[in-house]
Order: sequence, then structure tokens, then C-alpha cells
Amino acid sequence: MEHVRAKALSARAAAPLVAAMNTNEKNGVLEAMADALMREKDAILAKNAKDLERAKAKGTSKAMLDRLALNEGRIAGMAEGLVDLTSLPDPVGEVVSMWVRPNGLRIGQQRVPMGVVGIIYEARPNVTADAIGLCIKSGNAVILRGGSEAIDSNIAIVRVMEEAANKAGLPAGAIQLIDDTSREAAKALMRMNGVVDVLIPRGGAGLIRSVVENATVPVIETGLGNCHVYVDALADFDMARAIVINAKTHRPAVCNACETVLVAKDIAEGFLPGCLEALRDLGVEVRGCPETKRLAPWVTPATDEDYATEYLDYILAVKVVKGLDEAIAHINRYGTGHSEAIVTNGYAQAQAFLQRVDAAAVYVNASTRFTDGGEFGFGAELGISTQKLHARGPMGLKELTTIKYIIYGNGQIR
Amino acid sequence: MEHVRAKALSARAAAPLVAAMNTNEKNGVLEAMADALMREKDAILAKNAKDLERAKAKGTSKAMLDRLALNEGRIAGMAEGLVDLTSLPDPVGEVVSMWVRPNGLRIGQQRVPMGVVGIIYEARPNVTADAIGLCIKSGNAVILRGGSEAIDSNIAIVRVMEEAANKAGLPAGAIQLIDDTSREAAKALMRMNGVVDVLIPRGGAGLIRSVVENATVPVIETGLGNCHVYVDALADFDMARAIVINAKTHRPAVCNACETVLVAKDIAEGFLPGCLEALRDLGVEVRGCPETKRLAPWVTPATDEDYATEYLDYILAVKVVKGLDEAIAHINRYGTGHSEAIVTNGYAQAQAFLQRVDAAAVYVNASTRFTDGGEFGFGAELGISTQKLHARGPMGLKELTTIKYIIYGNGQIR
Repeated sequence: MEHVRAKALSARAAAPLVAAMNTNEKNGVLEAMADALMREKDAILAKNAKDLERAKAKGTSKAMLDRLALNEGRIAGMAEGLVDLTSLPDPVGEVVSMWVRPNGLRIGQQRVPMGVVGIIYEARPNVTADAIGLCIKSGNAVILRGGSEAIDSNIAIVRVMEEAANKAGLPAGAIQLIDDTSREAAKALMRMNGVVDVLIPRGGAGLIRSVVENATVPVIETGLGNCHVYVDALADFDMARAIVINAKTHRPAVCNACETVLVAKDIAEGFLPGCLEALRDLGVEVRGCPETKRLAPWVTPATDEDYATEYLDYILAVKVVKGLDEAIAHINRYGTGHSEAIVTNGYAQAQAFLQRVDAAAVYVNASTRFTDGGEFGFGAELGISTQKLHARGPMGLKELTTIKYIIYGNGQIR
Repeated sequence: MEHVRAKALSARAAAPLVAAMNTNEKNGVLEAMADALMREKDAILAKNAKDLERAKAKGTSKAMLDRLALNEGRIAGMAEGLVDLTSLPDPVGEVVSMWVRPNGLRIGQQRVPMGVVGIIYEARPNVTADAIGLCIKSGNAVILRGGSEAIDSNIAIVRVMEEAANKAGLPAGAIQLIDDTSREAAKALMRMNGVVDVLIPRGGAGLIRSVVENATVPVIETGLGNCHVYVDALADFDMARAIVINAKTHRPAVCNACETVLVAKDIAEGFLPGCLEALRDLGVEVRGCPETKRLAPWVTPATDEDYATEYLDYILAVKVVKGLDEAIAHINRYGTGHSEAIVTNGYAQAQAFLQRVDAAAVYVNASTRFTDGGEFGFGAELGISTQKLHARGPMGLKELTTIKYIIYGNGQIR
């Protein structure tokens, strides 16, 4: 896998030069890349058509084809995303805090780029543009390894963006695409310790498991979301119904969609039948516990496996629980640490849920769908971290940086 | 490795209960553990004597025996360390920032414990007490896997501390020692994804490599320090000599000691011979580049391997460089990203060194020996992180926490 190593080393060599660019220089590169995408959109669409043709010949699902497909609107969206990054604050160089020690040493904690960020992802070719933009704005070199389905699109996007970026002053080598889509190439990237500083997998459960299993480079796990809404005994029914419907049906295929609704038994009879009928009318298949089935006999029985499943579809598991304690225990057992919500007007219930649920984002009286860099106000994101190390929740520009201590002395020794 | 898994699961079960303890409760546990160590010191020393006896029979080196040995003073030091932790601010629960989105959602970033912290370490039995104290104060359950040399000491220390802690209100299971010192047991711990939240190896290069190579659980690498002092052409000679001598000889066996001195060629003739003679008089073996050897013919020739070596001993590599650029390039090539220092009175040189050297701690006009939780003002530390993810530099209580987003809504949906 010498060609993977060679590309990673080129990125490594470029990294300090990217880190040294000032904000104006980086914004210039982002704008140049956005312009180039628009200018060369026909060339990109032609290559995307090849990917689509190959995928169709393979009998790829309609949902997958939709993820793979580019059009003028989507390319314009990629370009806009790059331009939007220019207005975000540059995290690099910020001194987060600085203090003076009794011996006079001034110790500052300064935000600096990671260095080389590796991203392993699946079908969506727009991730290619987003990831390049976020990495450049945060002062990093980037090495991309997309899926085989989108390889022609990815090669075209990277060619267009890299050429424009280099002309606009980005150091050569700072953007790398591994065009070898074999597993061996991915594995080689995962073991590039000392060359790749962090690896971010974006995709389904299989991809993420493979990266966690094989990587020796530090990894940030993203995206698996088995999210819950707990409707407490003290919930406002209208609010609860609106939140459940939104969390399940607004965009079922994304990681912050709700997969299981838990309902306190004291209100199950009053709340559940109406709410579940509304969901059914929206095309949702409901799978319920025995108590749910007693209240709404038309639902499918739920198995233990249902509670552990991220459907990413118009399917919802429902369970009636004794109350808050059982709800929290269920969530901490089956949840993936992504986004969890309680609907309640009880002060103690809200506080207990916030403190005791172990997840990246814990909500009171709001839909889980808000776990998103844009909704949080970060402006952009590279994914949602579901691990606890380094970044948790939406990863924006700050999460692509690390810190170093800068220490000003005047001859101090110990 | 069912017994390792069982212990990890016990720690996992205890973790939310430890996380929910308030500061007074945790401080009470720390004090009870400190008292117990002092009360039971004879029992601990008797077990430590067994470890020492076994080590001596094996022909263990004197330096290693010293690391392994406990005495009344060292046990008192362990107890004091625990009491000191009670006066440090509790990081858990702090809301680092909170903001309101246009739709009224209040989003707060709250510091929360990691959950279960795993620590794999080598001979020093005092690490056992330090690690337990730091993990408990930061609201975590802890699972320890010490080396075979100190196993009897570690079992005794954990027994004494656990018993006292549980009596003082620490949930059962929160402190776990893996008393199986086989490699298989360590490997099992390294692959406990979903049970162990982070693994921190403390020890030599071999241990750290093995953990990075084998772990699927997130790891924080610690401690390898191939540190440099660069004496710039604009350095004050007296200050430079004091810093070099301190960084090399104050405590050569620790990770923030200096291993290579780089000297600008313009001042090499004026600075080096005197400085190197002073080092020689302090018992330091000097290995130099050809130019160093020309100026101080008595030095041993340095090889490329010398520049890559963390001696941890009274040995110093020396290289004359053209100037700042070559010094930075050398450091970024051979350094381990730990602690790097420049001695200079040049403003531009100081700023360039701070910004361009890629390390956890970068110093101007001070000894590398200050990279330490105590010296930084953190009160205590679990080691020095040399990776970029999550923690970089000294890891105190804050570095043993993560964040979660707590979100207060009033019915928001998308």
C-alpha cells in the first residue's frame, strides 16, 4: 500500500504550511474552490452520471441512488457550503486561556490544527466538498477515502477543487484522495500512526465498526443514533405528540431521528392510542410492547431486537415504562449515546433526565432532530460524534482543532 | 477472559452512581482512603516487601527496584496526594458555556465524567493510589491493570482503599483491579468497547506501543518525551546554559527531560565548549555532530539514532544547526510532540518557534521540566498526553471528563 502511504506523507508534509495560513488566505481558497465547482459543474455531473449508471446496473436501491446523485442544485449547495465557511470565525490561533504561575511563567492554551485529518465515508459525494472545506478552514491537511460507488464523482470533485485551491495559494499536497477503493487501502490509512492525526468515519454501522476494529490511528466515532423520546407522566400531550411525530417523521433516515418512544404507564392510555394513530396515518409502522398492543391492538409486537435497532425508516418501537427510572435505564442500555429527549412539565423529572442520561445531547421538551451543527449554531459540521473522547455531539471547526501550550518564560528552571 | 469482562462490567454498572456523587461525598471518600492508607501502612509494606524480594531474585536493576519500593514516606505521599485532591475544584457539572438559539432553545455544554477509565501501567505502585484518587474526584469508575512486578503491593493498596471508600459511600464496583497480569488480560481490557470509555497507558515505549496496536477502546497516549532545547543565535548564554543543564540533569529519567540540544552555528563556538564541559562535570555523556566534535573534541560522535532516542539518562545528543528553520525541522522530525524549548532574545524567533513547533508544550526561555500538572497549576496529573485527541500535555481532573449538551426547550420541533 505504498501509494496510500505516499499520499498520506504528502498531506503530512503540507500540514504545517496549511496550519500557518491566515484566515484571509484560507477564505480565498474556499471561495476559489466554490467558484470552480460552479464553473466545472458539467464535468462533475458527467462523472457522476458514470457512477449512477454503474450503480443502476448493479441494482442499487432507490434510496442509495438518491444519496449518490448530484444535480445542479446539489453542486450549488456544495459551493454555498464552502462560501458559508468563509463567514465563520477561524478557530486557529485562539488562546483559550492564559495564566501566570507564581514563578512568572505565562502559560497559554492555544487552539491549533490537528494536522492531517483522515475521513472515510460512503456514498454521498457532497461529503467530499464539505470535508475539504471544513478541514481547510480549520487549518488541516485532509486525506479522503470515499466509497467505490462514488469514485468517479469524487475524483472529479477533488480534481476541480484541488486545482482551484492550489492556484489560490493552498500548499500542494494538502488535499489527498485515495482513489483505491479496496479494503486494503482503507486499512492502510487506518494504521498510518504518526502521519494521520485523526480518522473520522462517516457512514453506516458496518463502516464505523470496521474503522474502530482496525484503526490504530485515533478515531472519532460518528453517527449511529438509536434515539429515544420519553413521554413522562407530567407531559403536555399536544407537545409530546408534536415532538414524537417530528422526531420520527421529519427525516427518518438521519441519525438524530427517533427510533423508540417510551411512555409513562400513568398516561399511556390517554396519550398513546391517538399519537400512534397519527403516526400510522403518516405511514409509520409501529412495533409495540404488550401494553402498547393492549392499548392499540393494531400494532406489530416489538422484540428486544427492535429496541436495539436504528431503523432509519418509517418504523417506530414503542414501550410503556413504569416511569422515569425505567425510561432512563432503558435509554442507557439501548441508546447509542446520540440524542435523547424527555417531554415533561415536571422540574425534578427534567433535571434528573438531563443529568442521568448518558448521551451527547439530552433534550427537555424539544425534538431530537436539533442535534446538528447548523441547528446548534456551529455553522457547519463534519458529523455527530457519539464517543466521549475529544468531541461529543456535532463536530464543527473547533472540534477539528487541538490545543498546545505556549509558555513564555524569562529563564525559569526547576 | 470472562473475569476481566466481569470486572469491567461491575465498573460500568457503578459508573453512573459515581457520576451522580456530589463534591462533598467524593471528598469524604478521598479522605477515608487517605486515612486507611496510613492506618494500614504496615500491611501494605509487608506486601511490597514480597514484590521487592521477587524482583531481587530475578536480578532486577537498582533503578527498577527503586521505582517499585514503598516506604513510610512514600505511603504518606500517596495519602497526601489524595487529601490534596479534596481541595481542587470539582470539574463535574460545570456548564462551560450556554447559549440561546433564535428558536429559543437553550443549549449548554456541561462537563460530565467519562464513565469508566482504564489505566494500564508499569512498576510504580504509587500510581495505583494516584489514579484511583483522580478518577474518583472526576466522577469516574476506574479499572486498573498494573504490572506483575508490583502485583502484591497493588492488591494490598486497592484492598485498603476500596474497603475504606465503600464504607465512606463509594458505590460498590467503582474501583477494579485486574489481578491477572497476563498479556491476554491486558488485551481483553483493551477491547472492552462500550464498557471502558478510555484507556490510558502509563509506562515505557513498549507498553504504549502495545496499547496503541491492540486497543479498540479509545486511547490517550502518554509520556514519551524526546525533548529538545534550541539555543538560538540571539540567546543569552548564561540563561541558555542554566536551562540546558536544568532540562538535562534535574531529573534525567522523566519524560520532560531534555535529550538533544540544538545550537545555532553562529554562536556554537562561543557557547558550546563551556556548556558541554559543565555538563560533563555533572556526569553527562555528550554525543555530538561533527561540528560539535570539532568544537569539543572529547565528545562521542552522535548517530542519527541518537537524535531519535529518549535516553532517560545522563546522556545528551548535541547538534549544531544553521539556525531557527533547521532547528524547527529537526524537532518536528525527531520530537515526540512532548516539550520543546527555545532560548532567545529575538522576538521573531520566539514567535516563530511557538507557532511552528508541533508539540504539547512549547517554551520560550524556560526549562522543558515544567511540563507537569503541578507546575502548570492543575494540582495533580495522571500523565502527559502526547497525542492530539482530547487531551494534550498534562492531564488533570478536567481531562478525565467529557462534555454533554443539555438542551432546554419548550416544545421546539423542526
